[in-house]
Amino acid sequence: MDMAIANSSIQFESTDFRRAMPGHFYAVGVGPGAPDLVTLRAARLIESADVIITPRSRRSDQSLALKTVGNLIGDQEIVDHVYFMQRDVSKTMACWMSVADLSVQRCRSDKSVVQITLGDPLVYSTSCYLLSLIGEALPKKTIHVIPGISAFQATACLFGQALTSQEDRMLMMPATDLTAVTAALAQCETLVLYKAGKHIAQLADLLEQKGLLDQARLACYAEQGEKQFLSTNLRDASNGVHGYMATVIVNIGHRTWDDQAEKES
Amino acid sequence: MDMAIANSSIQFESTDFRRAMPGHFYAVGVGPGAPDLVTLRAARLIESADVIITPRSRRSDQSLALKTVGNLIGDQEIVDHVYFMQRDVSKTMACWMSVADLSVQRCRSDKSVVQITLGDPLVYSTSCYLLSLIGEALPKKTIHVIPGISAFQATACLFGQALTSQEDRMLMMPATDLTAVTAALAQCETLVLYKAGKHIAQLADLLEQKGLLDQARLACYAEQGEKQFLSTNLRDASNGVHGYMATVIVNIGHRTWDDQAEKES
Repeated sequence: MDMAIANSSIQFESTDFRRAMPGHFYAVGVGPGAPDLVTLRAARLIESADVIITPRSRRSDQSLALKTVGNLIGDQEIVDHVYFMQRDVSKTMACWMSVADLSVQRCRSDKSVVQITLGDPLVYSTSCYLLSLIGEALPKKTIHVIPGISAFQATACLFGQALTSQEDRMLMMPATDLTAVTAALAQCETLVLYKAGKHIAQLADLLEQKGLLDQARLACYAEQGEKQFLSTNLRDASNGVHGYMATVIVNIGHRTWDDQAEKES
Repeated sequence: MDMAIANSSIQFESTDFRRAMPGHFYAVGVGPGAPDLVTLRAARLIESADVIITPRSRRSDQSLALKTVGNLIGDQEIVDHVYFMQRDVSKTMACWMSVADLSVQRCRSDKSVVQITLGDPLVYSTSCYLLSLIGEALPKKTIHVIPGISAFQATACLFGQALTSQEDRMLMMPATDLTAVTAALAQCETLVLYKAGKHIAQLADLLEQKGLLDQARLACYAEQGEKQFLSTNLRDASNGVHGYMATVIVNIGHRTWDDQAEKES
């Protein structure tokens, strides 16, 4: 997905985000789930949109993204798009085709369309599929992406732990490939693992083996009210009960300016 | 900086963020600079705080964080804290000691104290120093961290480029150590470089040599109004004019579910 602009240096152009514009498409991040972690820009666009696209997985009876912004919903047209959680690229794209068609059609009828998504639209999000399809049909200037607070930020804040300071490197990745996770532990000072749900037990084993189990923090459903589960011991959650929407942060070490200065001298 | 909680599994406890509480300290991220990229939670806490701590570098005549939330400021006590941009850990901590003392004193007098910071308080932020000092003096339950949109998110949104999808790894680090940057190019699908200002020319050389120059995006002062400068060609900014507060994102490749499935089979 790339909506890169043709000319290399782009002049500042003030975009009016006070309300959703007719014919424009907005991929809007609504943050981790708490209604007050929505940005003012996101709130205004959602409130003023003609059409709201809201993805929901087949397993859940309600869209979490829609629930998050429930108090901003009035008479907008709500398109509740059920998607399949398949790890198959071509089937996933096919699944998004119809909602992309609908979005383009609405925009061409001078409606404003907002797709809401939990977290940030550009961090492991369903917005990527929609944006790549819509980018082929609508003028670039009518497509906008609004950032949102991602789960790793909410998790770090709940534990009050710095993600990066000074010369630290932070690596973020899915927890699915344990070989890649093992390699990553040697490549950063902070490791953020998404989609950790099914892999908590293996992760706990790996981290214990590396002497890092005490430096791991787990959050499931961070900032999603009473569903929120936090733990400083991965073993607490390895029974799979708290599996879905799990983020693990491992504080491996710290790279200070002084280390850096020594290296340079 | 670690305010880890003693018990390993933490029960959900609803914290009231509708207004800043007497005796409580809040490290609040205000996002990249656009007033409408502040979250509702941050806005409410800033509006209702007794004391606002706002860091500003010696070089700038006004705090960018304070400017961002200017419309939320009424009769709060404003503590404009000048800090030195030294890459020296002990001097940096000493510099933060007096503002930590003031914050603790105000909290003990039942005032609510909010430190505002550009971006996210846990991503290369001055909040880390203040939080580690205050964590030694105040009860953990009275210290809160509120996430904010970080510059890499604002930058990615302005270019409409996915940061991560499917099995992608994203690595975030300062651009200061070119050897570490070179190694990082082989360790992720998306590389985010902070503090790139002084290093644009060397980065352009490195990326050209690796055949990645066309995949790099640069944003200086992203979402800071007319100061914003975007470019798809790092050479445009290698004269140093657009140096300060520069974020570079390099899209190195993509790791799909299908690659992953093949690896597993």
